[in-house]
Amino acid sequence: MAAKENGPKQEERQRTVIAGPTNPMVTPLLSDLYQFTMAYAYWKAGKHNERAVFDLYFRKNPFGGEYTVFAGLEECIRLIANFKFTDEEIAFIKTSLPKTCEDGFYNYLRGIDCSDVEVYAVPEGSVVFPKVVQLLETSLLNLINYASLVATNAARHRFVAGKSKLLLEFGLRRAQGPDGGIGASRYSYLGGFDATSNVEAGRLFGIPLRGTHSHAFVSSFMSPDEILDKSLPSRDGSSTCEDFVSLVQTWLNKIKWSQLLHGIFGETNQSELAAFTSYALAFPNNFLALVDTYDVMRSGIPNFCAVALALNDLGYKAAGIRLDSGDLAYLSCETRKFFHSIEKEFGVQDFGKMNITASNDLNEETLDSLNKEGHEIDAFGIGTYLVTCYAQAALGCVFKLVEINNQPRIKLSEDVSKVSIPCKKRCYRLYGKEGYPLVDIMMGENEPPPKVLHLLAIFLLISLWMII
Amino acid sequence: MAAKENGPKQEERQRTVIAGPTNPMVTPLLSDLYQFTMAYAYWKAGKHNERAVFDLYFRKNPFGGEYTVFAGLEECIRLIANFKFTDEEIAFIKTSLPKTCEDGFYNYLRGIDCSDVEVYAVPEGSVVFPKVVQLLETSLLNLINYASLVATNAARHRFVAGKSKLLLEFGLRRAQGPDGGIGASRYSYLGGFDATSNVEAGRLFGIPLRGTHSHAFVSSFMSPDEILDKSLPSRDGSSTCEDFVSLVQTWLNKIKWSQLLHGIFGETNQSELAAFTSYALAFPNNFLALVDTYDVMRSGIPNFCAVALALNDLGYKAAGIRLDSGDLAYLSCETRKFFHSIEKEFGVQDFGKMNITASNDLNEETLDSLNKEGHEIDAFGIGTYLVTCYAQAALGCVFKLVEINNQPRIKLSEDVSKVSIPCKKRCYRLYGKEGYPLVDIMMGENEPPPKVLHLLAIFLLISLWMII
Repeated sequence: MAAKENGPKQEERQRTVIAGPTNPMVTPLLSDLYQFTMAYAYWKAGKHNERAVFDLYFRKNPFGGEYTVFAGLEECIRLIANFKFTDEEIAFIKTSLPKTCEDGFYNYLRGIDCSDVEVYAVPEGSVVFPKVVQLLETSLLNLINYASLVATNAARHRFVAGKSKLLLEFGLRRAQGPDGGIGASRYSYLGGFDATSNVEAGRLFGIPLRGTHSHAFVSSFMSPDEILDKSLPSRDGSSTCEDFVSLVQTWLNKIKWSQLLHGIFGETNQSELAAFTSYALAFPNNFLALVDTYDVMRSGIPNFCAVALALNDLGYKAAGIRLDSGDLAYLSCETRKFFHSIEKEFGVQDFGKMNITASNDLNEETLDSLNKEGHEIDAFGIGTYLVTCYAQAALGCVFKLVEINNQPRIKLSEDVSKVSIPCKKRCYRLYGKEGYPLVDIMMGENEPPPKVLHLLAIFLLISLWMII
Repeated sequence: MAAKENGPKQEERQRTVIAGPTNPMVTPLLSDLYQFTMAYAYWKAGKHNERAVFDLYFRKNPFGGEYTVFAGLEECIRLIANFKFTDEEIAFIKTSLPKTCEDGFYNYLRGIDCSDVEVYAVPEGSVVFPKVVQLLETSLLNLINYASLVATNAARHRFVAGKSKLLLEFGLRRAQGPDGGIGASRYSYLGGFDATSNVEAGRLFGIPLRGTHSHAFVSSFMSPDEILDKSLPSRDGSSTCEDFVSLVQTWLNKIKWSQLLHGIFGETNQSELAAFTSYALAFPNNFLALVDTYDVMRSGIPNFCAVALALNDLGYKAAGIRLDSGDLAYLSCETRKFFHSIEKEFGVQDFGKMNITASNDLNEETLDSLNKEGHEIDAFGIGTYLVTCYAQAALGCVFKLVEINNQPRIKLSEDVSKVSIPCKKRCYRLYGKEGYPLVDIMMGENEPPPKVLHLLAIFLLISLWMII
């Protein structure tokens, strides 16, 4: 990604209206003070009309991995397209800079926008590999760094979980602030998740929403006696069950005394049974229950099955269960066995295929060990480790001046990885015959594009280098 | 912190106007979907008018430490005080819930606010130790979790750096999204930092701002020849130096040929010299230079000193230097020696005391090892590790129902640390004779407050427990 300031005006540039940043707090002031002190010094030195090229890049893939998913571009474009200082903002900058700064600078700030800034970037969501204008530096880095980090993290979770599993982002409560949460939902979806629990992210970006109930909902009930409205119409509306609570109780007894189910439980928790029954009365088409408030196999699963079977009598199909603690691999397998036994014992078709969702501090490693252990989980709810990118909480994106007035510029350092690569560049991704990407190449702006023969030479060089 | 819903109305409750959340994206929709499905189920079961008590707490201090700084309360109060659904928000909730949900629920949502919610909390900024209403759960957790985490992280950095050092938060570019950056600046200041580079945080919260220039500024210059306006009036305005560039060059030669300075350098970098000179012309009272773009001891420091000595001739006092790479302990000591030699050689008072700021991926551990190694740094600029809380990217705050209609509620778990503590509680912090806090005690709401004798008994119990 590169941008140039005050480039030649394009007569036929398209002027489309681009909305402002999603977060109204993203303004030209969301920047470091030194961008303004530098802007003043450039202005004072008369350098503010020079044409500069900046590279925005990172030095190392996150999470010790081999790729990064590029994200955050749309928000950068929204910022750039609407970059304009308000009078109040300029007044604040004035109070933040030394009194000796000349008024002409503030007039200059009042007049600038980014209509002459050109941005070259790969599309948002592209896989990219390691290796733009002063006032934009901090804002662009802020918008790209976390977005790309969390999109990459999501892609890694998708890779470990496999294509067939449902991945749900549940991280809002642990995210780093309000739009840390909103960004996490947005860019996890970009990175391969299926849905989020975050309602505001659903509204803003149309991401599918998922969610059921918490432990508090379960413990807020005392017993089924407190349920006043016990009636539930059947799914097709042809009849009404006047006492759904009793129907549930009947099924619970059948389960309890079934030979096949081996009577693995005595009394199930009545608070939990009341909560499940209430939830089913409220959402007969979407009954998904959290089964670990008391004891999964002795209470949660039998209670769930009783309610699900009662719903089945009225033509409804329960959605499944969620496990949020304990040995998820073991509990999911035991639960699956129980569901299959229910299907067999009571002849309820597909009961064995009931959805099992798991949550509780899941991350790449725990998904991997669940896979190795063997499990029966269909969907994973992932929060803290996904949204805070716990394994590596920041991507080291940098923004370096590489050209000014067509002169290459470089930043040297004793640390070789910190040396910048001068000049405006073009990037090429080269594909093999099979359509798989082979290598990314950076070339000077005016160099001819790479050809097939060059590629061969490059591979020879890489091979030689690897041998040495 | 506890909150109750629909408590007794207080006739004389003060009604002060509280502004909305700082981030306009913090709305009642910044929540998990299941808060709304549960709210519907509560409403459907007629439980929405019951009085409930929730505890918001965390189970373990972050960073393997012994305390947590509580933060984020003000934003919670702003949310609660302005909690009201707009028609558009209700319309979106309606599209997110099953079609079977009754319209009465949306009318109910339209009518609710938090005027009956009571919040009990320790003051923001208090040190707290491990151990509210359904629709608020996710939002409050989101607002408290990261705020407390980063405030604690800042306090830990302050503890390691010591009271006399200046701590500057430079993390905006690496923070987890826009208000991850704004939150980091705000709560780092609360946790003991002195200033931030984040301009928007300065505007919003009055936090002191700090910042100078970057490597890009240095490499954007070619040579001092390109400086057109070379004049600089003296500080008292009594005279004007018509060629400040030549004055700098004269000082550079004096430094170069000084016996005392041992001629440790040959030619300094001219691009850097031009950048420093330009910056000094723009900010003669606030000249602070980043000296590591090329070579700290062979170029950056001599160039800085030449400009600082030229400023000194005109009555200005340079502000200091910043190191952003290399062996910070060694370079700061060498730089200090050089500054002392300049003071001695040219008789410039206090030049040896020139401020040295260091940055570059600093964190608690690197501060600690700098201390052990010995250094001459006066101020630390800390970014990534502070704002992303790299060492532990999330605080595990939870929100648990502990009482409903005066009945205690509990969440059980095979994992003992996940069992909630039932009932509404009062918290006491007990202090010893010397005024130091000794222990925090949680007691039932109706239990009498602890007395001095009780405290003795508690200590005996703790001692006994530790012996066993």
